[in-house]
Amino acid sequence: MAIANKNIIFVAGLGGIGLDTSREIVKSGPKNLVILDRIENPTAIAELKAINPKVTVTFYPYDVTVPVAETTKLLKTIFAKLKTVDLLINGAGILDDHQIERTIAVNFTGTVNTTTAIMEFWDKRKGGPGGVIANICSVTGFNAIYQVPVYSASKAAALSFTNSLARLAPITGVTAYSINPGITRTPLVHKFNSWLDVEPRVGELLLEHPTQTTLECAQNFVKAIEANQNGAIWQLDLGRLISVEWTKHWDSHI
Amino acid sequence: MAIANKNIIFVAGLGGIGLDTSREIVKSGPKNLVILDRIENPTAIAELKAINPKVTVTFYPYDVTVPVAETTKLLKTIFAKLKTVDLLINGAGILDDHQIERTIAVNFTGTVNTTTAIMEFWDKRKGGPGGVIANICSVTGFNAIYQVPVYSASKAAALSFTNSLARLAPITGVTAYSINPGITRTPLVHKFNSWLDVEPRVGELLLEHPTQTTLECAQNFVKAIEANQNGAIWQLDLGRLISVEWTKHWDSHI
Repeated sequence: MAIANKNIIFVAGLGGIGLDTSREIVKSGPKNLVILDRIENPTAIAELKAINPKVTVTFYPYDVTVPVAETTKLLKTIFAKLKTVDLLINGAGILDDHQIERTIAVNFTGTVNTTTAIMEFWDKRKGGPGGVIANICSVTGFNAIYQVPVYSASKAAALSFTNSLARLAPITGVTAYSINPGITRTPLVHKFNSWLDVEPRVGELLLEHPTQTTLECAQNFVKAIEANQNGAIWQLDLGRLISVEWTKHWDSHI
Repeated sequence: MAIANKNIIFVAGLGGIGLDTSREIVKSGPKNLVILDRIENPTAIAELKAINPKVTVTFYPYDVTVPVAETTKLLKTIFAKLKTVDLLINGAGILDDHQIERTIAVNFTGTVNTTTAIMEFWDKRKGGPGGVIANICSVTGFNAIYQVPVYSASKAAALSFTNSLARLAPITGVTAYSINPGITRTPLVHKFNSWLDVEPRVGELLLEHPTQTTLECAQNFVKAIEANQNGAIWQLDLGRLISVEWTKHWDSHI
């Protein structure tokens, strides 16, 4: 999918990985980039607008933990303005295993609810045009950072959900793939709580091993958007972009 | 771990797979089987007591979606009576993709919170004696029934969480393994809602393929308890018990 002239909604487009990705997206010249994030950041929005004045960058405050009806209301406003939306990026995430309920609500339920809400506008069974969903999951959904078992599990859930979405594409018309960054040097990683403080130095320890920058991650993110492969499980780690083959242990046969 | 003379807490021990498993456990002669379930079923409890009168079977009402402090209070009562608990089985689960929040709260958050609560009594860093956790996850955590993406994702999360718990055993003294049943002929499976009704006949379709009985599943469950392997990922499918090797796509190196 060429980004040029497309309409894109980016949830958490001002976040640690989000902001650099928004910058890269804007460079590729979409028609609209609609950023939804919890906290407004007028400086960042102004910077994005300046990168490519031909792109319409807009911002709406959005907390992914709101009830799905509120998300629907916001999407109604956005669809009314843009008419069509080509790509939804779900990127909201927190990393703090002291906050069990909030981790699950943001990283897992938030992704499911935002997706569920947009189906009303996209689902081909309702006469919708279909669409594309890129969910930011994590390599910790493949294999956990076991010191943050709740975070890792919430990402395993987001990944599984995304894989299912892709298989539902023939029914819904909505394709999906997951973006799974490895350890990326964002403020998130420097200091965070492990579950029951099993490892107080987990952030430090992670950063003693090879990592990648948010820019490397963002550039590969844009490549994955351009590849536009339904069902792809993209691993964005150490500056590389790899397509992961999921192991089949079991098959529902339906 | 021989079940004989052990103290076991079984969350959802009266459920579809739970009740047959409770029967098999009681036959193996534990000292105490403490069943926690949402709805009391005096007939089932009386039957369990009758199977083996030497076993003390008790029941407490418990909803896994309560705040963790309430779970702690209930566990305090149980530990005060039993003094020691050897095994906690987390078996609460619902299958209804119309209920997104509730599915996540029961299948994922419920497992995490009940586990978090018992750590106060077991964690060796607090002078506790350690313990064993058996989490009932699902083969849909390996590979989804994509028509129920929320259920499947919640099970992927429970599985990931359990794998992490096992790796934390050297720190906490608490070991863990997952019990992953395939399609088992319980009331749960006959009729359930798919996500956004993508497949109204999902239950029927599943039952057109080979399945297993709750008794076959229960007997293999008891074998897995006896094997007592920290970190094992047990697949209980089609009457068989198989240990699954998880694929390593990524390593945190810490």
